[in-house]
Amino acid sequence: MGTKNILVGQSGGPTSVINSSLYGVVSAGLQAKDSVGTVYGMIHGIEGFRKGDVTVLSDLSEEELTLLQTTPAAYLGSCRYKLPEDLSDPVYPELFAKFEEMNIGYFFYCGGNDSMDTVSKLSRYGASVGSDLRCMGVPKTIDNDLIITDHCPGYGSAAKYVATTVRQVTLDAKVYGKKFITIMEIMGRHAGWLTAAGALARKYEGDNPKLIYLPEAPFSMEQFYEDLDRCFEESNDIMVCVSEGIHDKDGTFICEYASSDTAVDSFGHKSLTGTASYLAEMVKERYEGVKVRGIELSLTQRCAATEASLTDITEAAMAGSLAVEAALKGETGKMVAFIRQPGEEYKISYELRDVNEICNKEKPFPKEWITGNNNDIGQGYIDYALPLIQGRSPLPFENGLPKFLYRK
Amino acid sequence: MGTKNILVGQSGGPTSVINSSLYGVVSAGLQAKDSVGTVYGMIHGIEGFRKGDVTVLSDLSEEELTLLQTTPAAYLGSCRYKLPEDLSDPVYPELFAKFEEMNIGYFFYCGGNDSMDTVSKLSRYGASVGSDLRCMGVPKTIDNDLIITDHCPGYGSAAKYVATTVRQVTLDAKVYGKKFITIMEIMGRHAGWLTAAGALARKYEGDNPKLIYLPEAPFSMEQFYEDLDRCFEESNDIMVCVSEGIHDKDGTFICEYASSDTAVDSFGHKSLTGTASYLAEMVKERYEGVKVRGIELSLTQRCAATEASLTDITEAAMAGSLAVEAALKGETGKMVAFIRQPGEEYKISYELRDVNEICNKEKPFPKEWITGNNNDIGQGYIDYALPLIQGRSPLPFENGLPKFLYRK
Repeated sequence: MGTKNILVGQSGGPTSVINSSLYGVVSAGLQAKDSVGTVYGMIHGIEGFRKGDVTVLSDLSEEELTLLQTTPAAYLGSCRYKLPEDLSDPVYPELFAKFEEMNIGYFFYCGGNDSMDTVSKLSRYGASVGSDLRCMGVPKTIDNDLIITDHCPGYGSAAKYVATTVRQVTLDAKVYGKKFITIMEIMGRHAGWLTAAGALARKYEGDNPKLIYLPEAPFSMEQFYEDLDRCFEESNDIMVCVSEGIHDKDGTFICEYASSDTAVDSFGHKSLTGTASYLAEMVKERYEGVKVRGIELSLTQRCAATEASLTDITEAAMAGSLAVEAALKGETGKMVAFIRQPGEEYKISYELRDVNEICNKEKPFPKEWITGNNNDIGQGYIDYALPLIQGRSPLPFENGLPKFLYRK
Repeated sequence: MGTKNILVGQSGGPTSVINSSLYGVVSAGLQAKDSVGTVYGMIHGIEGFRKGDVTVLSDLSEEELTLLQTTPAAYLGSCRYKLPEDLSDPVYPELFAKFEEMNIGYFFYCGGNDSMDTVSKLSRYGASVGSDLRCMGVPKTIDNDLIITDHCPGYGSAAKYVATTVRQVTLDAKVYGKKFITIMEIMGRHAGWLTAAGALARKYEGDNPKLIYLPEAPFSMEQFYEDLDRCFEESNDIMVCVSEGIHDKDGTFICEYASSDTAVDSFGHKSLTGTASYLAEMVKERYEGVKVRGIELSLTQRCAATEASLTDITEAAMAGSLAVEAALKGETGKMVAFIRQPGEEYKISYELRDVNEICNKEKPFPKEWITGNNNDIGQGYIDYALPLIQGRSPLPFENGLPKFLYRK
């Protein structure tokens, strides 16, 4: 189809390695000089693109590209924007006119469920109007909840950060030898994959975290108190990992119990509380004299590039470059999926899968890996996750701090 | 005085490098075979020692000692225990009887203001009864608030972690290009040294964090709103660093405004809120449609050994070993202080200073380094702090996670 340009975007919540996938796309585009002209990046995804917000990525120097690979957060900016379900909406011809104007032959979108929905819609609309645009999805999410793929780029680094942090805080929390409960709140509204990573922190059997609660099993305060009582029989310091999305059997998020109309401060402002701080308050009342601390990992868990997994960085780049290779071969409407090979040694192969099978679906944490009294994680998960956190990021430091690439 | 044993303890809040000082003490003790017998460690400081809780450190293997140097949190456990002011209290002869029983000739205590108070009291009591026990202080605190010394071991690593985290979260918080306020709460009830480290995160002039508030200057909500208004004129995403100890002109901590008897949840439990989450709630109400996030760094800032400064690790070990050397030469009642040499190049010398001058005093963040409208940090601080965060910890990794030494 002659020389065409590439358009690439990033969408949804950023990760430590989403820019490594961008690096993969740009590098592969630069290498395919016979087929690819310019590599354009959408600023703030498809939403920014509609407003004409575009940058040229093929101008980046080799040094800048290397920096990009280890820079956290979406270099191009991101968006949370869903294209209309109705393919006869005028936004589609409008977008495709822009694509044609810019001579775009290859469209890459890096993101999770919602972003794959964008790839699905654009490829379906393209087919319906006989466009030769090739649309490919590059998976990304710290939540690890995309179906079909063994895991998602972004998860390994976030899991490594969670496990590292839980291990370090565990050591800190035990120094006084007094009764101490630490409640660590980890991202994942619906899927417990990232919270489960707390289990990787254990240095020996029976080590902290003693309790791990995922949203895939109902949570009850009564059971929680029983679990804590039992833990205190053996140990003074208890680390608890909870997903932000834990909820009771009726589906009410535990953090929702924290906020009510009566919860106002001295100025009359309504006070909102997270899951960890709510549980910490409850536990403080029950266990008098016990030191309790609620910690919300917050944004740090998805942007701690300094703690990123080299395996994750490498695979993320591979996903980006394979998407380009596939598009150049004529593929469209596909996502690069990770297939784990059987056998002792960790080995991944990459396959293309129809984005329509993937988009808007969620892969929950497997029930069989939730053990104990719905308060622990089994060895199956450990075996699954350990390969994903191997290796440290080679990110460069300058004047004592990590050096990143950023748009000013 | 013949062969005597060493007794070493850790006290107060732990840091990423307090074990590096312990490593320094043990290594120097092992090297002084002619003068030193066994190196004992107090479990949970002087409080645990009173109960007879002691371990032998000179049995640690070379590999274990190397691991110790890069392990966060107090390996020996810590305490917050103040010896009686009255030196005629029976606790003193009781302690010195134990010292004699264990043939302790050298006592080392690693900690901050309160721990130096312990060194002061033991050395004064020792002198009053003609004991030849030599008591030395090894400085440690992420707060950096010990007087006389240029800085404290523990501060550089915590500052590096804060700057790294602020830099990474800043990139994450700007990805949507929408109006976004992030409020980062950093440790330091009375001293703003650690919060000031947020300023190191800037990648270029005018970069985030836009606003930094320390407890050394009074905080007012009205001024805060004015500052935010002004920032929004130039930028969409605003990172604010606040010390947990910011207070208004009357001395009321800002976080105190968050809790009142009327702040109860739907179960009637009183709800407590931190400074960041309180400010986030206030700001959310004022700036409709602006995304606001409060983040409390919590324990992670003092135990993130993975982000520790090599300079800090090295200096911490040096402080420990120099304390041993000095005690062997007959010094007592002293702390190892850091003296910065004049000149462009960063160079530290170590001197012994009377613990009585140091204990129970606090070094506030210098007023002349608080700039802007009490909402920024000047270049003087940057020049002071940058040398302290140089170099990465050589800590070993095992199976994807940092490997630490710990007492089971």
